[in-house]
Amino acid sequence: MYMSYDNTPIRLGMVGGGQGAFIGAVHRIAARMDGHYQFLAGALSSDPARGRVSADELGLDPTRSYASFQEMAKQEAARVDGIEAVAIVTPNHLHYPVAKAFLEAGIHVICDKPLTSTLADAEALVKLVEQRDRLFVLTHNYSGYPMIRQAQSMVAAGELGAIQLVQVEYPQDWLAHPIEQAGQKQAEWRTDPARTGAGGCVGDIGTHAWHLATFVTGLETASLAADLDTFVAGRRVDDNVHVMLRFKPVAGEHPAKGLLWASQVAAGHENGLKLRVYGTKGGIEWVQADPNYLWFTPLGEPRRLITRGGNAANAAAARVTRVPGGHPEGYLEGFANIYTEAAIAIKALRAGQPIPADVQFPTVQDGVAGMRFIDACVRSSQQNAGWVKLVND
Amino acid sequence: MYMSYDNTPIRLGMVGGGQGAFIGAVHRIAARMDGHYQFLAGALSSDPARGRVSADELGLDPTRSYASFQEMAKQEAARVDGIEAVAIVTPNHLHYPVAKAFLEAGIHVICDKPLTSTLADAEALVKLVEQRDRLFVLTHNYSGYPMIRQAQSMVAAGELGAIQLVQVEYPQDWLAHPIEQAGQKQAEWRTDPARTGAGGCVGDIGTHAWHLATFVTGLETASLAADLDTFVAGRRVDDNVHVMLRFKPVAGEHPAKGLLWASQVAAGHENGLKLRVYGTKGGIEWVQADPNYLWFTPLGEPRRLITRGGNAANAAAARVTRVPGGHPEGYLEGFANIYTEAAIAIKALRAGQPIPADVQFPTVQDGVAGMRFIDACVRSSQQNAGWVKLVND
Amino acid sequence: MYMSYDNTPIRLGMVGGGQGAFIGAVHRIAARMDGHYQFLAGALSSDPARGRVSADELGLDPTRSYASFQEMAKQEAARVDGIEAVAIVTPNHLHYPVAKAFLEAGIHVICDKPLTSTLADAEALVKLVEQRDRLFVLTHNYSGYPMIRQAQSMVAAGELGAIQLVQVEYPQDWLAHPIEQAGQKQAEWRTDPARTGAGGCVGDIGTHAWHLATFVTGLETASLAADLDTFVAGRRVDDNVHVMLRFKPVAGEHPAKGLLWASQVAAGHENGLKLRVYGTKGGIEWVQADPNYLWFTPLGEPRRLITRGGNAANAAAARVTRVPGGHPEGYLEGFANIYTEAAIAIKALRAGQPIPADVQFPTVQDGVAGMRFIDACVRSSQQNAGWVKLVND
Amino acid sequence: MYMSYDNTPIRLGMVGGGQGAFIGAVHRIAARMDGHYQFLAGALSSDPARGRVSADELGLDPTRSYASFQEMAKQEAARVDGIEAVAIVTPNHLHYPVAKAFLEAGIHVICDKPLTSTLADAEALVKLVEQRDRLFVLTHNYSGYPMIRQAQSMVAAGELGAIQLVQVEYPQDWLAHPIEQAGQKQAEWRTDPARTGAGGCVGDIGTHAWHLATFVTGLETASLAADLDTFVAGRRVDDNVHVMLRFKPVAGEHPAKGLLWASQVAAGHENGLKLRVYGTKGGIEWVQADPNYLWFTPLGEPRRLITRGGNAANAAAARVTRVPGGHPEGYLEGFANIYTEAAIAIKALRAGQPIPADVQFPTVQDGVAGMRFIDACVRSSQQNAGWVKLVND
Repeated sequence: MYMSYDNTPIRLGMVGGGQGAFIGAVHRIAARMDGHYQFLAGALSSDPARGRVSADELGLDPTRSYASFQEMAKQEAARVDGIEAVAIVTPNHLHYPVAKAFLEAGIHVICDKPLTSTLADAEALVKLVEQRDRLFVLTHNYSGYPMIRQAQSMVAAGELGAIQLVQVEYPQDWLAHPIEQAGQKQAEWRTDPARTGAGGCVGDIGTHAWHLATFVTGLETASLAADLDTFVAGRRVDDNVHVMLRFKPVAGEHPAKGLLWASQVAAGHENGLKLRVYGTKGGIEWVQADPNYLWFTPLGEPRRLITRGGNAANAAAARVTRVPGGHPEGYLEGFANIYTEAAIAIKALRAGQPIPADVQFPTVQDGVAGMRFIDACVRSSQQNAGWVKLVND
Repeated sequence: MYMSYDNTPIRLGMVGGGQGAFIGAVHRIAARMDGHYQFLAGALSSDPARGRVSADELGLDPTRSYASFQEMAKQEAARVDGIEAVAIVTPNHLHYPVAKAFLEAGIHVICDKPLTSTLADAEALVKLVEQRDRLFVLTHNYSGYPMIRQAQSMVAAGELGAIQLVQVEYPQDWLAHPIEQAGQKQAEWRTDPARTGAGGCVGDIGTHAWHLATFVTGLETASLAADLDTFVAGRRVDDNVHVMLRFKPVAGEHPAKGLLWASQVAAGHENGLKLRVYGTKGGIEWVQADPNYLWFTPLGEPRRLITRGGNAANAAAARVTRVPGGHPEGYLEGFANIYTEAAIAIKALRAGQPIPADVQFPTVQDGVAGMRFIDACVRSSQQNAGWVKLVND
Repeated sequence: MYMSYDNTPIRLGMVGGGQGAFIGAVHRIAARMDGHYQFLAGALSSDPARGRVSADELGLDPTRSYASFQEMAKQEAARVDGIEAVAIVTPNHLHYPVAKAFLEAGIHVICDKPLTSTLADAEALVKLVEQRDRLFVLTHNYSGYPMIRQAQSMVAAGELGAIQLVQVEYPQDWLAHPIEQAGQKQAEWRTDPARTGAGGCVGDIGTHAWHLATFVTGLETASLAADLDTFVAGRRVDDNVHVMLRFKPVAGEHPAKGLLWASQVAAGHENGLKLRVYGTKGGIEWVQADPNYLWFTPLGEPRRLITRGGNAANAAAARVTRVPGGHPEGYLEGFANIYTEAAIAIKALRAGQPIPADVQFPTVQDGVAGMRFIDACVRSSQQNAGWVKLVND
Repeated sequence: MYMSYDNTPIRLGMVGGGQGAFIGAVHRIAARMDGHYQFLAGALSSDPARGRVSADELGLDPTRSYASFQEMAKQEAARVDGIEAVAIVTPNHLHYPVAKAFLEAGIHVICDKPLTSTLADAEALVKLVEQRDRLFVLTHNYSGYPMIRQAQSMVAAGELGAIQLVQVEYPQDWLAHPIEQAGQKQAEWRTDPARTGAGGCVGDIGTHAWHLATFVTGLETASLAADLDTFVAGRRVDDNVHVMLRFKPVAGEHPAKGLLWASQVAAGHENGLKLRVYGTKGGIEWVQADPNYLWFTPLGEPRRLITRGGNAANAAAARVTRVPGGHPEGYLEGFANIYTEAAIAIKALRAGQPIPADVQFPTVQDGVAGMRFIDACVRSSQQNAGWVKLVND
């Protein structure tokens, strides 16, 4: 990753991510990791006082700490040295209006997932991005892990044969108690339908799992049956998700099927995202908590443990790898890979050059697909977990 | 396991299990393990010549190697030193007629799973067992593992709180190719609906997984949606099973839900039975291939690795444990535990005493429940994987 | 393992192994596992009353429960139906006199390890065995595991290249407290130099580890430096062993080296025997508690997980395997493999035929080698852990 | 890690770390991770042309890319906006002269390990640091991992009781072939005694292992016996290291002992640093490749898996943790923790304040201790792996 690109950092702003937030700090580290960005402006909190204190702690120029995202978009667009890109790390319902403001101001957007809180917003956003010549990068960060890139590349190269089965799960236990009722900020908005959207667990992490599965396999979901449930009394959104998946056939092969489980009430799981894919020639298995390993199980041969940076890592993995095998990379490096992919693209645009073909990051199209997945899960669940098709997918 | 029971071995016969069979040898080792049985008679093959050779190899008295199970039941019942129990290790469709013959001859039955090849046979068998004063033991052997007994006991004692989620899976890959079309004997009958029943993978291993889940949790299944599929072209039964489960509520708690996956085409899996149970207070996780370990994940505390024979093994586990922690027991020991449980019961009956309360083995009732599970899966799948109730359950 | 040998069981007796013993029960299960032995006589305890009760529980004919091993050897040798083999499961200091009595009575010996309590006894025993036409089988049972046979075979076939490094460890924690001072029987004799020998931990488990390392690699130990220590106050023998090993050169290659750690005071370890071997072309790793797996690490390729019964198991492993991959075998099966190897040899001798070339069990020669290892460790430790050669090795 | 310190970045320079180097890029990412440093100047290569190209790629002001470290020290010291700290990432033999130049120029030093290439240089450097009021930070980066901080804190709090055993190993396989003879740059200088010092493997990674063991346990090494070997023909330094360790007694307890293994020729190991510590009350186990886990094995209780960011993480771990449990941190985060500790210290000095008591980084004293360890290993090995004391330790 010794970059030969333009080394002038990209001027970056942030909306959300003030004190007490979680993902904002992650985005800032991800942006710093490879030196491609300079963090210069923010509307860090909907509470202006908190926003100011946060900006101060982070060393922002006070004149570039804004009380509202609208003002920030306007002022920054007007500056010669205004930000070139903005990171949106607010609750879901604000993704759309914030993205809209910055896109219309000619500023690239890097936005946390899920895309929006409603499918209607998502579809409007797609149109908006199509109209504006700006990048929209969605931080489905798990697709940035080197071993996930390796897996995607192996599937594409046919090393697994025709894909038959996809098993993906994402259990957590942090919402096993009704902590939103005790004022935990992260839990509060994530369980409030007005801010998080119609899906709770399915939107927060189910969509991550589904994105990862489709990213690696390239499969499109034909239909699904989803049994969403709420185990914690008084909770207003689902906290456990069971889904049976049917994928569209590929090249005349028998269509693949899958199971997806996401939970926020499964005792003992911190962040247990796990993907398994099985094809006619072999399988792969990957566990997010141990991301430097990829099990490859060619049919009829012993299981092989491929390692990031190791002797069987392929070019797709090597491209997003910083340190040799045995020196573990983690969540922040995977997240930073999305930021660095975005940086390569932004720098290409800056230079009036095409975005290199090997650059990959989740787009607004991936985001709307995820919103259709959430929508289908909610619809299915409302129909007693019957089978539904994904809208427009 | 220094037994204080009557040490005169139980006279045992076997139907099926000749050369080329797999599970017959397992039953014989299981019967020998603790010295409770003496193997004396057999109708080891539907092919009399093969039966004779097999009996000879196993050192049976030639006069007690029978050409048919009917003759064997008749002759053995007539001998003073005739067998007291018979092990049935034939293909599924013979379980019912063979069991019937021996039960009617007054001989205890130890029978491989699933109970029968049709639900009708299963229900007839239940009635028959109720009428006869003989034991019927079904070798859902995985319930004999010490750490499974530990898990069952922990659930019963409330150590996991109210059960909310059950995730069970049983992937294999030995049928990834159509080996039944190449004459592999084990594959042949297991993929022939006439011998195996309407369910293929769901009957062969799905029912094991489901039995294990219900054995440990004590939950009853209310309804399910099953998406059975056949990935190998030309195969006549399902080879992959996805099931969403809804359990009956217990004591006013929110009803539990579950996912079950069984597959015989999942590359890289030998015999990957795995059970996870999550309650309001904690979870457990157990993997059959590594059966001496039980993960216990009390909510809010670090994961704990309980070991068979180790410092946190409970009485239920200790009762079926032979050697200390760190000296691994395996599949054969777990299987032998079922045989030894049966032996304790048979010896109690022999002595005119009640069967000790802590004796546990799967019964004909468990068998018919398993058949209802298979039946429901097949019915659901025929209705486009819609939700169905279990009959009479 | 469908044996084509003579199926008349070998008549077996046992010295030691009464109530309260551990390893006697293991030997009895091992003898039963494959049906090659019939247990008929015993001198089960040095306490005749305990011996009688134990014999009764085990269903022995009371006339064949003896008060002393001397009487047993004499009487059994005089019977037409006397035992053909005896299992010796006493404390170490009795191995020699008991073995002597039975060998001189023309009875094969299966003896627990280490061979004796003194090197002098061991050397005398070697001579005795050489003079008598009887088998002497030493139950270094870990060499019976299928994956260990696989590893030995891979080394012999050169799949690892020239062996360079051997890392073996055997940590336990059951003697972390001075339980021998509280009357724990197993601990008592194992920490009594008069019964166990000069080495404590090094004799009890260090010798197992060393045997395993040399069994797999075929290497001979040239010299060693051993730092034996006793961490528990008042203990009379070592409870922790650190050894640096230098092996004799093989075929002009650079001599291999190794480290051996054995401990009975290492908190958290039940029976943590682990072997790693590294050659110029690759390495292997095996953990006794998870014995169905063998890691193979060919240099420059990803790690491969070979499984017992799996697609990369070789003939040496398959020969001692009972059930398919994914159906775990354990400690008792590995132990039983030694008994079955012995049975094949005894049945061959019975039939006046040569012992098949592929039969492998630890012999009296292996036993005396182990005693020389213990002796060298004790001598080195007495010389401030300086380097010493192995006597006569 | 929402820092409340002065947020003006520290001006940083680097010596070494140009194109083709490995550890320089790691230092740069570590410095960027938390935003505490600004990289402004460098003498990136002993080859001035390569230095210039490297500087250009990294976006340095060309006037601050120097042809020699001497010139850089002089010029930067003269600038008002000169660097406040320098990172030294050269081969070992240059650590001393470079550090000397910058310390004498009043610039803080962050230096890669081992401290120097000779013990004499190391001792001279200690004196120099004592004379100058500048920080010297040695990047024994593994001590920056959160779970290592947790382990250190647990030992200090007595949670393991009195420490008895320390088992540490650091196997790699990247030097299994003589790649230095084929011109691999990293291998070349690491196997050249003039540049790397008298110890090869022992200096490069043995010293990391030994530092980690002593960092966590707080134990001092009394004496050791080291068997260094060179398995690859033609190699000029050791490539495999076996060491028996004896520690100084603590508070009247029985002195602890240990084994250390380091290797660069152990097939299958990428960077297998592993530490196990056993005390009278419990043990811990940590594996660098899976750094977010710490096994804790309290004697008599089941093993517990403590996770970084998880429910049993202590304050010492939390202090150096960025993201929640289940979101893995890795090598770069652990390395960055050393840089951030240094930054806190430098900012405190900048502000004329005392360095906070909880700041921890390896110092020049740790460096000279490591050199004494290397020296002792080399001396012992020259005396046929006999026991030697550490000089002045």
